[in-house]
Amino acid sequence: MSSRQPRILICGNLVWAHEEAKQLFNGLADIVVMDSPNRPDFLAGLKTGGKYDGIVGIYRHNTSADRIGVFDKEIIDALAETGTVKWIAHNGAGYDQIDVFRCAEKGINVSNTPGAVDDATATTALYLVISCLRNYAWAEQSLRQGTFKSVLNPGRAHDVTGRTLGILGLGGIGLRLAHLVHAFPMRVIYHSRNKSANAPEWCKYVDSVEELCRESDVLSLHVPLRDETVHLVGENEIRAMKKGSVIVNTARGKVIDEEAMIRALADGHLSSVGLDVYPNEPLVNPRLLEFPQNVLLPHMGTENQDSQRHMEVRALTNLRDFLRNGQGNDLVPELRSRL
Amino acid sequence: MSSRQPRILICGNLVWAHEEAKQLFNGLADIVVMDSPNRPDFLAGLKTGGKYDGIVGIYRHNTSADRIGVFDKEIIDALAETGTVKWIAHNGAGYDQIDVFRCAEKGINVSNTPGAVDDATATTALYLVISCLRNYAWAEQSLRQGTFKSVLNPGRAHDVTGRTLGILGLGGIGLRLAHLVHAFPMRVIYHSRNKSANAPEWCKYVDSVEELCRESDVLSLHVPLRDETVHLVGENEIRAMKKGSVIVNTARGKVIDEEAMIRALADGHLSSVGLDVYPNEPLVNPRLLEFPQNVLLPHMGTENQDSQRHMEVRALTNLRDFLRNGQGNDLVPELRSRL
Repeated sequence: MSSRQPRILICGNLVWAHEEAKQLFNGLADIVVMDSPNRPDFLAGLKTGGKYDGIVGIYRHNTSADRIGVFDKEIIDALAETGTVKWIAHNGAGYDQIDVFRCAEKGINVSNTPGAVDDATATTALYLVISCLRNYAWAEQSLRQGTFKSVLNPGRAHDVTGRTLGILGLGGIGLRLAHLVHAFPMRVIYHSRNKSANAPEWCKYVDSVEELCRESDVLSLHVPLRDETVHLVGENEIRAMKKGSVIVNTARGKVIDEEAMIRALADGHLSSVGLDVYPNEPLVNPRLLEFPQNVLLPHMGTENQDSQRHMEVRALTNLRDFLRNGQGNDLVPELRSRL
Repeated sequence: MSSRQPRILICGNLVWAHEEAKQLFNGLADIVVMDSPNRPDFLAGLKTGGKYDGIVGIYRHNTSADRIGVFDKEIIDALAETGTVKWIAHNGAGYDQIDVFRCAEKGINVSNTPGAVDDATATTALYLVISCLRNYAWAEQSLRQGTFKSVLNPGRAHDVTGRTLGILGLGGIGLRLAHLVHAFPMRVIYHSRNKSANAPEWCKYVDSVEELCRESDVLSLHVPLRDETVHLVGENEIRAMKKGSVIVNTARGKVIDEEAMIRALADGHLSSVGLDVYPNEPLVNPRLLEFPQNVLLPHMGTENQDSQRHMEVRALTNLRDFLRNGQGNDLVPELRSRL
């Protein structure tokens, strides 16, 4: 009887891997889809006898926040109170929408999907690097406005080859970007909390964020959003960069002090910025649009069917492995200390 | 006396390499700048006693066409009549604005700047490949129009990694692009009039344009514009491509049958096109703008100060070598048979 099986809850977009989901949980669990229009309905559903009663694990996508909000203390506590929910399999590399410290306190595990996002996100960063250095976003606007290239100045544009890329955070995405730009080659330097054992010999470690900024023509951010990374790139770091340099951000908007960045664009210290993320998505500070040289993507890091499928399968696989073996592969670092 | 020196004529943009020009021709030739507002003035200047009398070589940039037109039979004949002009050093890879066959008949040499354009143009092609596959041009328009990504569909977008790129024409630019996309990797196949001795082993030769089209997810064009390459990619070739594929063109607009391409966009056979070149630049067929997924650049192939400087120096060096040794390195193929 399927009613004897554990239940898992699909919370937010699961678009590409429906067939894979059926196969992964066949004989293991029933799949329930979260259909709550708002948070009170969701919280009610979790109670004994509610529509989500008996769920043991949750597949979570950020799109669920549109209806029930982020997984803050209130939601984590409600999940803990069920006594049954033990695993949140988040679809995405960044899991700043989940209060993982509360999860740790309450004994709920959280996994993310590292690796599955590396290629697509690093490709987005590469795109932003090229477009900023070559002034392509501006060029496309000029063409579509009927002025072909008459408003452009090749003196603002540079070859990618030979420029120095500074990577802040050499995790999977940063390392993948390093390999992609090495094809030109760009000169690649990086800073992380610790030296990376995976860094190739041509990828030089520098000791501080400020030194990274000083040496880079283009700074690309690849750190997670945590309390200590908020405004990690602020006024001092931006002013340490060379005049005319570029910042690319595919990580999280709040890692940069946006006001300091806009001041540096306005006075020409930064020649352009390439952004895929913003502090208050989907809101975009209208001042950023005043600079035609800025390359502004609407959080497209992994937005394509191939990577989305990989990520969905990866998140679901964590949940499947938890059901089968009590442990998924991608437990986030904040929860690992509990092992 | 500097008046005893031969004279060379700068015909069109020379922007970045003024210092280099002085050094290259120091003690060899006087530099005269073409200042004619129109063709009659230019032709008059070439006559005995005219302002361009006695020039032995010409540095030419396509921007000169705005005032005196392309170097067609009329201009070549006028140059030949001087009896002194023996070398046209064209700044650019493509020299379709020069009637090289007439030059051959009249004993005037023509050089271009191969190599110097490879990196910048291949980078442009790479940018178009990424943007088309990932729907970034559309995404940027959506953000700047205030709709963030709500109008987009990740089902239209694909990862670059793992897709098949078909390169039509494996000269310097095509080969450079092959190496850049190999970093992902994409699968790379190519067709040229002849197999290339420089092709890496992972870059497979296919026997025909049609076979190249059949196998490619993205077709990228890297052939020069000649009589036999006009509409080389026409209705048959486009329809041989898979539904949903992409065409990228950084070569010359007339290599594609634009009407056939637009029909294929309209009925969804092509998912998007990434174009840097158009049949009648700076005019752009307004129908191309009706497709937000198209990536449309205003001929930016080499538009940046680093590559422009390289190209200017390379063109000038041909002229300097001609003056010093009677021969520059980059004589175009149509003139080589005369050696």
